[in-house]
Amino acid sequence: MPLDPKAAVASLKELRALTADANGAQRVAWTDTWLKARAWFEGKLKDLPVEYHYDAAGNRWVTLPGASEKALILGSHLDSVPNGGWLDGCLGVMAAFEVLRHIAEDYRGKPPVTIRLVDWADEEGARFGRSLFGSSAFAGTHSIEADRGRTDRDGIRLEDAVRQCGVDIDAIGDAQQERKNAAAYLELHIEQGPVLERLGLPLAAVLGTKGVERHAITFFGQEAHSGSTPMMDRHDALAAAAKLALEIRNIAGKHPDAVCTMGSVKTFPGIVTAVVGRCETTLDQRDLDADVLAAMFAEARAKSEQFAAEEKCTVEWSRIWNIEPVPFHPHLIDLCEEAIRETAGKSHRMPSGPLHDAAEVARAGIPTVMLFVQSLKGISHNKIEDTQEEHLELAVAAFDRLASKTIAWIQA
Amino acid sequence: MPLDPKAAVASLKELRALTADANGAQRVAWTDTWLKARAWFEGKLKDLPVEYHYDAAGNRWVTLPGASEKALILGSHLDSVPNGGWLDGCLGVMAAFEVLRHIAEDYRGKPPVTIRLVDWADEEGARFGRSLFGSSAFAGTHSIEADRGRTDRDGIRLEDAVRQCGVDIDAIGDAQQERKNAAAYLELHIEQGPVLERLGLPLAAVLGTKGVERHAITFFGQEAHSGSTPMMDRHDALAAAAKLALEIRNIAGKHPDAVCTMGSVKTFPGIVTAVVGRCETTLDQRDLDADVLAAMFAEARAKSEQFAAEEKCTVEWSRIWNIEPVPFHPHLIDLCEEAIRETAGKSHRMPSGPLHDAAEVARAGIPTVMLFVQSLKGISHNKIEDTQEEHLELAVAAFDRLASKTIAWIQA
Repeated sequence: MPLDPKAAVASLKELRALTADANGAQRVAWTDTWLKARAWFEGKLKDLPVEYHYDAAGNRWVTLPGASEKALILGSHLDSVPNGGWLDGCLGVMAAFEVLRHIAEDYRGKPPVTIRLVDWADEEGARFGRSLFGSSAFAGTHSIEADRGRTDRDGIRLEDAVRQCGVDIDAIGDAQQERKNAAAYLELHIEQGPVLERLGLPLAAVLGTKGVERHAITFFGQEAHSGSTPMMDRHDALAAAAKLALEIRNIAGKHPDAVCTMGSVKTFPGIVTAVVGRCETTLDQRDLDADVLAAMFAEARAKSEQFAAEEKCTVEWSRIWNIEPVPFHPHLIDLCEEAIRETAGKSHRMPSGPLHDAAEVARAGIPTVMLFVQSLKGISHNKIEDTQEEHLELAVAAFDRLASKTIAWIQA
Repeated sequence: MPLDPKAAVASLKELRALTADANGAQRVAWTDTWLKARAWFEGKLKDLPVEYHYDAAGNRWVTLPGASEKALILGSHLDSVPNGGWLDGCLGVMAAFEVLRHIAEDYRGKPPVTIRLVDWADEEGARFGRSLFGSSAFAGTHSIEADRGRTDRDGIRLEDAVRQCGVDIDAIGDAQQERKNAAAYLELHIEQGPVLERLGLPLAAVLGTKGVERHAITFFGQEAHSGSTPMMDRHDALAAAAKLALEIRNIAGKHPDAVCTMGSVKTFPGIVTAVVGRCETTLDQRDLDADVLAAMFAEARAKSEQFAAEEKCTVEWSRIWNIEPVPFHPHLIDLCEEAIRETAGKSHRMPSGPLHDAAEVARAGIPTVMLFVQSLKGISHNKIEDTQEEHLELAVAAFDRLASKTIAWIQA
């Protein structure tokens, strides 16, 4: 049987029927529904000439041995956020499965290089706030100590929850053994943003995942009575924050793919009759270029200090989190574009704003690329997350072409 | 004994010792500490040739009968906010008491016009959220029906709390009887703002209380992922709100005494990784001129709609509360200035941003003026509220002069 993209879509619907309710997908990692999804997936492997097992971090590996031990890895994740969509993560696993099946059949069970499928454990971090759990263990960037104290909202500890699923938190570093012979990694994912829809294109080659600078910024002014305090006597912390909320758009606007977001503003005392004495904000900045990211961070910081001074306030910054940009492999990006053009006529190159397991794989030094398919309205992590079925089928077909090209590249 | 401003200051310290704790004044209306303050005050009346009683709304009236039944009323309030200062309200009562005592002595118990002192009930509205309780009953502007449902944070109903203090909620309109023969009303109060301190002046004549427009303004955009949503595709509700937060300063700046305040901003979902989909703000606008207030309101509304459109958002307004400006009596303002100049050398005229009982008295058609004394750092409703004692003494002396001038004006 030739490649059957419709089979991948049918599997996604089967998985949705099994693991979603009226509010959306419920495949939160380390829960019964997630284990049910993984058991369902294992059931699909029985007729293929493959070996499969879970590694020390709970990642599912499916291996189709080839003439060479050099391995092409195709991966994504079955876990979802609570009330999630029907495509985020599982599209990549179902596409990888169909491509693996197709390769196994095409080469009568013995492809020129080894083909591996991976279903990463807990990409979303929805229950314990630690995303990329399995792929970071694989990459060796996981800090177990940082995760020991994590609990879910019922107070259950991460290490107890993963033990219930057969994972010993102290042994997850052993997942790095799976890196042996890894020659390339490919991941198909929905865009989760509005760019491809706006451009009228189904598919894009992904340049890498953007680096992130995430900070808490607090402006300190002077609480004052809204009636008795003339405008000129105010130290209005909100005014300084408002200037920064607008300025970050100028800062991002200097760079083609950069984004800057003020997602949270809190005012204190926060009552209608008082000038804001303290204003707590957050800033999230992303770009694929580390120099751009550093420049944007420095500029936002300088502007915040300027605005604080203008408003007779002070400002304090506190880093919440950051990660460097992870560019993907230049030649694999080229191959991905070729595959897209051959499948859909026109391609596009874009960075990924959201993080993905592919970023961890790339950080481990394995040549990596991702393929994006259009998201309707740019919405994800929501039950209304959707993509045209025609585009899903194109995506599976392009991913299969990309796999073929990558096999040839590994051989060469 | 001549006027003794130091006696008024000494009484304020006595009251503080009786009714404040480490966190400040605790004379919240309709509580035991408030009743204790009122009983203490009653003790001071025994040696004076006065009649005293509580009216139907719980206002304390002290009457020194004069040759004419026409009455000069001197008033303020003994109640405080929780953790309040040592001057807000009670300064006016102690100054009125000292002036009353001085007039009684000067005229050997029979002044040319009747002199009345009033201690208004529940100016602050701290417990039930209804300020100017007693003075609005006096003025006939009180809506009993609007207050029936009010409860304090322990669930105690307003009508039960006032009954404990001898007030029948259904009868408070009878307090309007106290308006009989009222010829003028004078009130001394701390400024509660930074203007006089900045000008280096101790005292000011108050032009009236500003009108207030108070609104909730909500901007509706589109929640979106901070990483995957390009700047150009955003509908950022915070950006529209930030523009308004800055624009209200321009709107206020067109008018010499106007103020506009955005006191509260709430962002939804309010997380670091999401563009703000909904932003709830509040706006408080004040001016002494009704036309200016109306123009500022219209301009803020128009600008909010412009900013919403620019940011591909929508905006909704909802009125929280409003009150018209209450100008004081022009001739009494002149007399107040004269009294200040004769006492302190230099005067100033300014509107009051905060509301006061005097506004209700003026709304009842009684010629009214207030005298402000400087507040240190403009801080009030706080235990650190303070005024130089030298300025407090000047204020009592100027208030006494103003009373003399007003007696002469009533006679003429």
